[in-house]
Amino acid sequence: MRISARNALKGTVANVVIGPVNAEVTVQLAGGDTVVSIITKESAESLQLVKGKAVYAIVKASNVMIGVE
Amino acid sequence: MRISARNALKGTVANVVIGPVNAEVTVQLAGGDTVVSIITKESAESLQLVKGKAVYAIVKASNVMIGVE
Amino acid sequence: MRISARNALKGTVANVVIGPVNAEVTVQLAGGDTVVSIITKESAESLQLVKGKAVYAIVKASNVMIGVE
Amino acid sequence: MRISARNALKGTVANVVIGPVNAEVTVQLAGGDTVVSIITKESAESLQLVKGKAVYAIVKASNVMIGVE
Amino acid sequence: MRISARNALKGTVANVVIGPVNAEVTVQLAGGDTVVSIITKESAESLQLVKGKAVYAIVKASNVMIGVE
Amino acid sequence: MRISARNALKGTVANVVIGPVNAEVTVQLAGGDTVVSIITKESAESLQLVKGKAVYAIVKASNVMIGVE
Repeated sequence: MRISARNALKGTVANVVIGPVNAEVTVQLAGGDTVVSIITKESAESLQLVKGKAVYAIVKASNVMIGVE
Repeated sequence: MRISARNALKGTVANVVIGPVNAEVTVQLAGGDTVVSIITKESAESLQLVKGKAVYAIVKASNVMIGVE
Repeated sequence: MRISARNALKGTVANVVIGPVNAEVTVQLAGGDTVVSIITKESAESLQLVKGKAVYAIVKASNVMIGVE
Repeated sequence: MRISARNALKGTVANVVIGPVNAEVTVQLAGGDTVVSIITKESAESLQLVKGKAVYAIVKASNVMIGVE
Repeated sequence: MRISARNALKGTVANVVIGPVNAEVTVQLAGGDTVVSIITKESAESLQLVKGKAVYAIVKASNVMIGVE
Repeated sequence: MRISARNALKGTVANVVIGPVNAEVTVQLAGGDTVVSIITKESAESLQLVKGKAVYAIVKASNVMIGVE
């Protein structure tokens, strides 16, 4: 499926913490950055997210803010 | 100000499109990815976003999804 | 690509309004409801969204609220 | 109260999972789809969400993405 | 309708800017703060938002970040 | 860092509930309102959020809805 979300950053799962409802997934991007994601426990299990798995961190453009130092 | 948003990806502004209410800002990350952001026109102007400016693309962890091919 | 977003509602595009930055896409669900989406103009054009096209309205679970009358 | 969110899909609560901070609520829509929502535990309790209760799944249009197969 | 969103801040409309797809609504809170909202043009018109109208600025808790100086 | 989010409401932490993945932070605004925020447990700990600490409740304008009675 192609999706309207403009941002899909390629990486690998670096860590997964499972809670009773949500899970925190850390993605190591190819470019060196890490991205942290909160998804449901159910999604983390359904997608079989484990360390080292190739994934995309996907973000809708309206959820990206800009910061300036 | 330090902010609770877990993701702040360093980059430079690659493009800005200003509309009557919103603006689309494209950020080139150091690692090679690009990230597209929709913010208000007012914010884009207030932060003086122009091509080449050093910025951060900031995303709250609960707004990051995971995709698997 | 499989995505962590828990909600993917099948329907057809009922209307598209293109603005200078964003676009409003109305999706008619099989079950009779309609769902309105705001995505970037660029995404609407890239996905070639036109009336009658089969699509999914996709929503991350953390973006769904509950109302009670 | 009338609210600006464009999407209010009528259904009944099919399941509720309560965690220490958040709760996952599954809504069965009249049209046959199911929608999963993450809200705070406090909201789930305050709205007295139990299986079979008539509710609306409410989504702001800017949080709806479009997918194409 | 009662809604799961935890935050409903009472105020009055201070300004409305209508674009082709979205509208920017500024709300003056009783406590002195102002809150800016982006909703669809259609919602702004449907709710007949004009300067001085009594409204609530509504935010889902998962969309609130915390900043520390 | 200056950020594009249009809303930064000054207040003090009134309560913090820590879960295994997320935390709920209640902020008492100077104007009398309270705002509830869900952030990651990691952010709550990293920002050392405790009762009485001066903070800002930060919200992107596209995440603010308008309600009318």
